Amino acid sequence: MLDSFFTPKNIAVVGASRDPHKLGYGVLRNLIKYKFKGDIYPVNKHASEIAGLSCYPSVLDLPHSVDLAVIVVPSEYVVSVLEDCGKKDIHHAIIVSGGFSETGEEGSRLEKELLRVAEKYDIRLIGPNCIGTIDTHAPLNSTFVVGMPEQGDIGFISQSGAMVAAVIDWATGAGVGFSRIVSLGNQIDVTETEMIELIGNDRETNVVTAYAEGISDGKQFLNLASGLSRKKPFVVLKGGRSEKGARAVTSHTGALAGSEVAYSAAFRKTGALEAKTMEEMFDWARALAWQPLPKGNRVAVLTNAGGPAILAVDAIEKAGLELSPLTNETRSYLKSRLPKAASFENPVDVLAGSGPAIYTLALEALLTDETVDAVVVIQAPQDWFIPASLAEVVAETAGLHQKPVIASIMGKASVDDALTILHKRRIPNVAFPERAASILKAMADRRDWLEMIDRQKPYKPHVPKSRAEELVKDQKWVDLLAEYDIPSPESKTAFTEKDAVTASSQISYPVVMKLQSETVTHKTDIDGIRTSLKSEEDVRNAWNEISESASRHNVEMDGVLIQKMLEKGHEVIVGIKRDDQFGPMILFGTGGTDVELYKDTASAIAPLCKLEAQNLIESTIAGKKLKGWRNLPAADVDSLIQALISMSYLAVHHPEISELEINPLYVLESGVYAVDVRGSLTEGSG
Amino acid sequence: MLDSFFTPKNIAVVGASRDPHKLGYGVLRNLIKYKFKGDIYPVNKHASEIAGLSCYPSVLDLPHSVDLAVIVVPSEYVVSVLEDCGKKDIHHAIIVSGGFSETGEEGSRLEKELLRVAEKYDIRLIGPNCIGTIDTHAPLNSTFVVGMPEQGDIGFISQSGAMVAAVIDWATGAGVGFSRIVSLGNQIDVTETEMIELIGNDRETNVVTAYAEGISDGKQFLNLASGLSRKKPFVVLKGGRSEKGARAVTSHTGALAGSEVAYSAAFRKTGALEAKTMEEMFDWARALAWQPLPKGNRVAVLTNAGGPAILAVDAIEKAGLELSPLTNETRSYLKSRLPKAASFENPVDVLAGSGPAIYTLALEALLTDETVDAVVVIQAPQDWFIPASLAEVVAETAGLHQKPVIASIMGKASVDDALTILHKRRIPNVAFPERAASILKAMADRRDWLEMIDRQKPYKPHVPKSRAEELVKDQKWVDLLAEYDIPSPESKTAFTEKDAVTASSQISYPVVMKLQSETVTHKTDIDGIRTSLKSEEDVRNAWNEISESASRHNVEMDGVLIQKMLEKGHEVIVGIKRDDQFGPMILFGTGGTDVELYKDTASAIAPLCKLEAQNLIESTIAGKKLKGWRNLPAADVDSLIQALISMSYLAVHHPEISELEINPLYVLESGVYAVDVRGSLTEGSG
Repeated sequence: MLDSFFTPKNIAVVGASRDPHKLGYGVLRNLIKYKFKGDIYPVNKHASEIAGLSCYPSVLDLPHSVDLAVIVVPSEYVVSVLEDCGKKDIHHAIIVSGGFSETGEEGSRLEKELLRVAEKYDIRLIGPNCIGTIDTHAPLNSTFVVGMPEQGDIGFISQSGAMVAAVIDWATGAGVGFSRIVSLGNQIDVTETEMIELIGNDRETNVVTAYAEGISDGKQFLNLASGLSRKKPFVVLKGGRSEKGARAVTSHTGALAGSEVAYSAAFRKTGALEAKTMEEMFDWARALAWQPLPKGNRVAVLTNAGGPAILAVDAIEKAGLELSPLTNETRSYLKSRLPKAASFENPVDVLAGSGPAIYTLALEALLTDETVDAVVVIQAPQDWFIPASLAEVVAETAGLHQKPVIASIMGKASVDDALTILHKRRIPNVAFPERAASILKAMADRRDWLEMIDRQKPYKPHVPKSRAEELVKDQKWVDLLAEYDIPSPESKTAFTEKDAVTASSQISYPVVMKLQSETVTHKTDIDGIRTSLKSEEDVRNAWNEISESASRHNVEMDGVLIQKMLEKGHEVIVGIKRDDQFGPMILFGTGGTDVELYKDTASAIAPLCKLEAQNLIESTIAGKKLKGWRNLPAADVDSLIQALISMSYLAVHHPEISELEINPLYVLESGVYAVDVRGSLTEGSG
Repeated sequence: MLDSFFTPKNIAVVGASRDPHKLGYGVLRNLIKYKFKGDIYPVNKHASEIAGLSCYPSVLDLPHSVDLAVIVVPSEYVVSVLEDCGKKDIHHAIIVSGGFSETGEEGSRLEKELLRVAEKYDIRLIGPNCIGTIDTHAPLNSTFVVGMPEQGDIGFISQSGAMVAAVIDWATGAGVGFSRIVSLGNQIDVTETEMIELIGNDRETNVVTAYAEGISDGKQFLNLASGLSRKKPFVVLKGGRSEKGARAVTSHTGALAGSEVAYSAAFRKTGALEAKTMEEMFDWARALAWQPLPKGNRVAVLTNAGGPAILAVDAIEKAGLELSPLTNETRSYLKSRLPKAASFENPVDVLAGSGPAIYTLALEALLTDETVDAVVVIQAPQDWFIPASLAEVVAETAGLHQKPVIASIMGKASVDDALTILHKRRIPNVAFPERAASILKAMADRRDWLEMIDRQKPYKPHVPKSRAEELVKDQKWVDLLAEYDIPSPESKTAFTEKDAVTASSQISYPVVMKLQSETVTHKTDIDGIRTSLKSEEDVRNAWNEISESASRHNVEMDGVLIQKMLEKGHEVIVGIKRDDQFGPMILFGTGGTDVELYKDTASAIAPLCKLEAQNLIESTIAGKKLKGWRNLPAADVDSLIQALISMSYLAVHHPEISELEINPLYVLESGVYAVDVRGSLTEGSG
């Protein structure tokens, strides 16, 4: 049904104008100029005809209903125009007009009115304060922006109208084709998530790109975006940082997982590729639309000059990709065909004097080589061959194989023809070879995500619901974790020196003593922990020292915790945080007291599958350390993965927990132990 | 004298040709086409005239000597041609021909021959295997590459000929002017450092850029580059990573300070700005050539659309710059002039309908505002004004102030005229607004470096030379450090349990016991350290535990070190490493056992001035921690700075020390202590 925004049968332009300085002029001009095939009905009470079309004084005067109304009248008239649309049985409207919530309270009031009318008549709205929609295949251009991209298979959803205008202008110059484009404006009704679904389902769209400053509904986004990513590549550019993360938080997890982290985690979970700049977004989109994904991470570089190849190789390695080793067969073939002084290793340098024929032979050999997953073809400017001929042979040769090829025909003045050919033949070109690395990395990331999704097996720990809920309500975190198969070391609380001694001998030495106090967040800050207590004397001394320290720091002491001392393990942090947008998140990283300082943590959206837990671990230094580091033995990563998965389900099962943090979680040679746990409930759920 | 490579009075082209497929044709064509004003003498034994110029059968047949010979004959003839040049009293030659060391042993032999001849006749050489030189002001174009950049004030030195060709092509298309360009080829004689001096001294050059894959002489580079940076901005793009850093090293410092780190430290020390991509290099170069440096880090963004401004603001904050707060005066002025719905806060959004006049008023207000140090002007594509008119007013308004202005007139198809105007008026334009942030950061970095150099006061600790040399020879590191005013905690070596007890009571409890062994690099790896020993019993237990651990690990125990236990301090690492290229370097960062894992370290080239030491400290997390963290009090940063400076001079004074590492250095509330020291001498100096 929302398809009427892109493929309506007929359109009314309310506020159509003959004055080229009015937006209503631009909308009508674009509909006509870019060959909208249905009927167009200008509405303007001061004219009887515009641009050769009969004009109607009001929507109510239209001869019949239409699929779509584009409204370009001053803000104060929009509500009544929409009311007319409702009466005329029009169910889709793009409100281009500005002057709403972006200008202040009166505007917000008007938006509420709009929504009321829309609901009354069952009208879906894009805008207000937007640029409208483009469908190059329909074709439809309901915007007032000059220019229309060529037909192509990239869809673009934007929360900024200016970005749409910039992209149209850039695409026209660069010869990059688009399928559908939409600018969403103030999003009072249709949001970016609905558009993700709509444009994702469009048959002409092979890649969806989006510029988003925020997400309207995190849960819905998680669903729709991962649904989209399964079918088509989805590239997102996130603009603007939310200040929400700045509110006071007491746990490490809270301080470490800001809103930006949550967005990135959400993108990662859904397979959306997060570009850092506009240039990167469209570099990636072109390659993903035009080229197959690489099967592995081994890249070959083919060049006619050393310098640019070195920059490409540096960037490839920095991106975490590898250089193909090349087979002996390839090397000896190259040796027999290329100039004597050429380089037959990767990067393959055919030297400045080589033209399209030599490039063809070398590229064919590389694409045939089983150690090559992708090829970057660089041509530094030279004086003997037209760049266009290289473009032709690269496109033709690449077409014979199922491996991605990225071109970097360098220069600006002399290469326009070459770029036109490359883009027509669906080979992305980058002006500087370094950019090829970022493209190939994005493609590899998408491949990895698709493989992960394929292998994903949901795991759900079985915990009796009523028992768990009671433990949550009583904030018995240690017991709750135990239900989720995350054990804690044996421990007892003691309120007197004598109790402490008794408890210690019951638990058996060595033990650890920890100050208990409602008022202390970080025990080490006030020197409230004693470890390696091996005898009654040690315990008595520790009791006295901790009591003194507490009174010195003016801290109320609610006894101490006596805990079995574990063998030396890896100290990691595992935390639950609830993001306003995306719900429960799991944080993992280096634990201990310096955790906020080193910020060696990573976050993922709950629940986790096994591979997500593994990726989370491996993306931190703590994770690398688990393989064995100095005097610490290699740790039980399997139990850790299990614990992360359990925590993630705990987070999903108990939305009333606002934060829960194990720091440290000891990862031993065998098993994990929650040594220190702290949690809190959302307000009102205690 | 090397100026003859750019401003010769006359030139011989040896190997000049009529065949457009020969390089000798291109060289002659460029000399003529790009209007070299002196006499040109083609040399070719098969012709009597080429391109209307008399041609000579050999160099010896020239009517008189010339300032410069450009040699473009096959490699096997180059030596004899050079011999002829010598006999003809020609003292400068550019050898374009390839086929030398880049092709193998025979080529290397030829290069040695070339050098021998050059020395015999006192000839300076650029090349072989290079593209030659360009001086747009002379003018001179001795290359065979098609195209000639416009006159400008950017100099470019390249170790890659392809980069030069790419840059010429790009510059021609982008309308960016250059002063001098040189491609250095195999660098058998004239190197990049000499060129840094030469082009740095060129009056027409205001910014020097360089693409370098290596540095021929690190010491010379440090001198010349910092000399250049004092006068003119110097931007470097480093290509290729050296493998030298991969050799086995025993200390943390060695493992942490690789060759890439050394290059970056050298660039930082000399004030060279290190770009990460070609695009960045020329983005920076244009801005540095054309615009004044910002006085502070506060940036204002002026835009006609929200989205692109958000991306610019994100990038500005990520780069460590700030948004200008704007004065009330500015805000109320903007309010009185801009459309009602505009944003009068920074970023200032004049909205889509505003044209060059509104932009003028807003830009003038921002440039007048004392809280604004730089302005980024963004124009998203719009339909009402020609982009060229914005270019005009931005350039004109910027010219009235001494603050940098970076434009981002977005789009491609419609903005060519605007870019031509901006570049002519020396306003850099970036197609995507994010790039403005990197430019302004580079400018701010240059400003900071210039200020640092101004305030630099050399400090030299006074240490008796003969005493120090003896301590180095005996590897008495603790005593050596003491001479350089870096104390260690009181300590004694003990070889028996009884000795250990005696030593402990002499030093006074609490003490620390450390295993001494020639064969152990990291004591904690084999559990060879015991801390907080408070009694004879503790000492005896510790002795037994360490002995057992040593025998369990098959480690020979050469006694133990008993050391006074210090109050809890910040543990940092301070190390000396000797880089093959740039000499002694100082490494600083988080100390302790995990130092290699967290890699929280930074390096700088010795000797350090106070500000360099301060920057080194502040660029690490350890440095931030020194301001006070958790239960650690704020530390004595002044003593640490002093210690870093002392270490840096120690490194400079004693080249025979190959590595020296203090880990940990304790930084206390007052004073610093070298708790553990390890060093080694360069081979042959022991």
